[in-house]
Amino acid sequence: MSTRSQKWVLAKTMKGSATLTHFRLEEEDLSTDLQDGEVLCEAIYISVDPYMRPYAERSLTVGSMMMAEQIARVLQSKNPRFPVDSLVLANVGWRTLTRVSDMKSLRQLPIMGDVPVSNALGMLGLTGLTAYYGMTHICKPRAGDVVVVTSAGGAVGSVAAQIAKATGCKVIGICGSDEKCHWITHDLGLDAAINYKTDDVTAKLQETAPNGVNCFFDNVGGDSAGAVICHMAVGGRAALCGAISLYSDDIHRPSQGLSIYRAIVAKQLTVQGFNVLNWFSSWHEAYRALYDLVLEGKLRGKELIYEGFDKVPEAFLKLFQGGNLGKIIVKIRD
Amino acid sequence: MSTRSQKWVLAKTMKGSATLTHFRLEEEDLSTDLQDGEVLCEAIYISVDPYMRPYAERSLTVGSMMMAEQIARVLQSKNPRFPVDSLVLANVGWRTLTRVSDMKSLRQLPIMGDVPVSNALGMLGLTGLTAYYGMTHICKPRAGDVVVVTSAGGAVGSVAAQIAKATGCKVIGICGSDEKCHWITHDLGLDAAINYKTDDVTAKLQETAPNGVNCFFDNVGGDSAGAVICHMAVGGRAALCGAISLYSDDIHRPSQGLSIYRAIVAKQLTVQGFNVLNWFSSWHEAYRALYDLVLEGKLRGKELIYEGFDKVPEAFLKLFQGGNLGKIIVKIRD
Repeated sequence: MSTRSQKWVLAKTMKGSATLTHFRLEEEDLSTDLQDGEVLCEAIYISVDPYMRPYAERSLTVGSMMMAEQIARVLQSKNPRFPVDSLVLANVGWRTLTRVSDMKSLRQLPIMGDVPVSNALGMLGLTGLTAYYGMTHICKPRAGDVVVVTSAGGAVGSVAAQIAKATGCKVIGICGSDEKCHWITHDLGLDAAINYKTDDVTAKLQETAPNGVNCFFDNVGGDSAGAVICHMAVGGRAALCGAISLYSDDIHRPSQGLSIYRAIVAKQLTVQGFNVLNWFSSWHEAYRALYDLVLEGKLRGKELIYEGFDKVPEAFLKLFQGGNLGKIIVKIRD
Repeated sequence: MSTRSQKWVLAKTMKGSATLTHFRLEEEDLSTDLQDGEVLCEAIYISVDPYMRPYAERSLTVGSMMMAEQIARVLQSKNPRFPVDSLVLANVGWRTLTRVSDMKSLRQLPIMGDVPVSNALGMLGLTGLTAYYGMTHICKPRAGDVVVVTSAGGAVGSVAAQIAKATGCKVIGICGSDEKCHWITHDLGLDAAINYKTDDVTAKLQETAPNGVNCFFDNVGGDSAGAVICHMAVGGRAALCGAISLYSDDIHRPSQGLSIYRAIVAKQLTVQGFNVLNWFSSWHEAYRALYDLVLEGKLRGKELIYEGFDKVPEAFLKLFQGGNLGKIIVKIRD
């Protein structure tokens, strides 16, 4: 027996800005004669995330499938851990149907309670975990610290900012529209917002954080990030989660000018890039902490949901155009 | 009773490159009627160090005395911890005679054995401690790691490089002359040397560290530092001890281009500025470790000794002109 699966593959080398022409839809036959231990699953929701852009450049050849985590439903199973009709987290890429042989690609869904299941890709998924580890393990905020978060209206940034807020910090969010600035201050309760497109970031930091910034959670890189690092207090900690503004740079060549370098030296800063996978063994504790924050009303998210497998590339590109609040997800089917 | 002391003060605001015109010699009368607990001491050796340049810019007003650590002899004492004729480490600045009231400025000399006493300002002094903490607490090298040190022929860099070598690492030194390259490979036993003035640093790193750099100890900043950071391996650690090439930059403004930023994110690097004062409470252990390395023949240093108090500014400026091997010290008297 076999069935047809659809998948999105890289149509040409990823360089510079990602466009629709970088992706091609393909179909393939999938044998449904499962071996012991295998599972056949069907995508319900697919997550799109900024990391896919540099990953595609560094690690994918043309014709390879794009990577992603899905929430999927088990259609057939020869694995008692994943029974038919159960929902799973499947790290299987931009595809509709998947025959999973390598069980490292599947995880059970965390406890969701009344929270909509799609959040297992967002604030209660890798997105939330990324914010959690960067904030708690690298930024290490203490009550009273001044914390700055870039992309504060985005999926990861909004969670990071709320974790800092729950810790008792003064939290300043940087984002790219007045709508986002309004959301993070009025709905999420941040103390101040900076619109990097219309405000002088350095001047606003001097005004809102006159004694400097203790913790910095960054997703963006570029001028805003540089301004924050140069305005940090002695001993400050910066967690670099992404550099969405720099993904068209050549990673192997430094460009001119390293003034943030001098700030790191002079103010004894710790600046650390990180990957949530490094903390895999303790994810369950982090899930629990995030879920508790949700129950306490201290962690809220927004989702922008595209509908249909054909919309995956479009949803992905939206990440780099700005304008979205919270997490972007593609719903494939009910 | 009183005596005359000489001191060097800042003659004009420190900006841009330091020059002789930044310093002015002054004399002052010093009462020698000591209070209980006080000490009168006389400089034997004065240390000059790169940190004095940014410190003078940030913290000194015109007319203030330049800061420095000395090895001094106690001439008069009303403090039983520091008897007459004993040698002390005195953090009292660029001056000949000092009446010390604040005992936080005085420390006992560490055990020197057969090692010349001037080394208490060099490899067995703050210079060595700086190298020790940056290397062992931030770079955290493991046997087999690839370690790069800039200013590897300089006072701090040469100690940092030898500590890494004693840990069983492959150590690559970057410096600015063939003489230094020869010294660090032939006399100190480093595995490779890069002359940043004549070599293509990135090409040389690709050749000598094909799998990337695990640990980076930097004193310099600028293009060489950028090249190393962009060539680091995943999970690498960089200790930023100084940024001698950047001391004329404006600390509060980032300049364009932050490609090292993307490297930090993509390779999950930890980049940390530090100050040896943060580890004050454990200095005695670090001294002991360094002294043991000296006894085992694994730590060697060179000194460039200027003679006479009038030579202090000249010795200080030499730090920024390159060309010196090891530590620069001014001998004031026998």
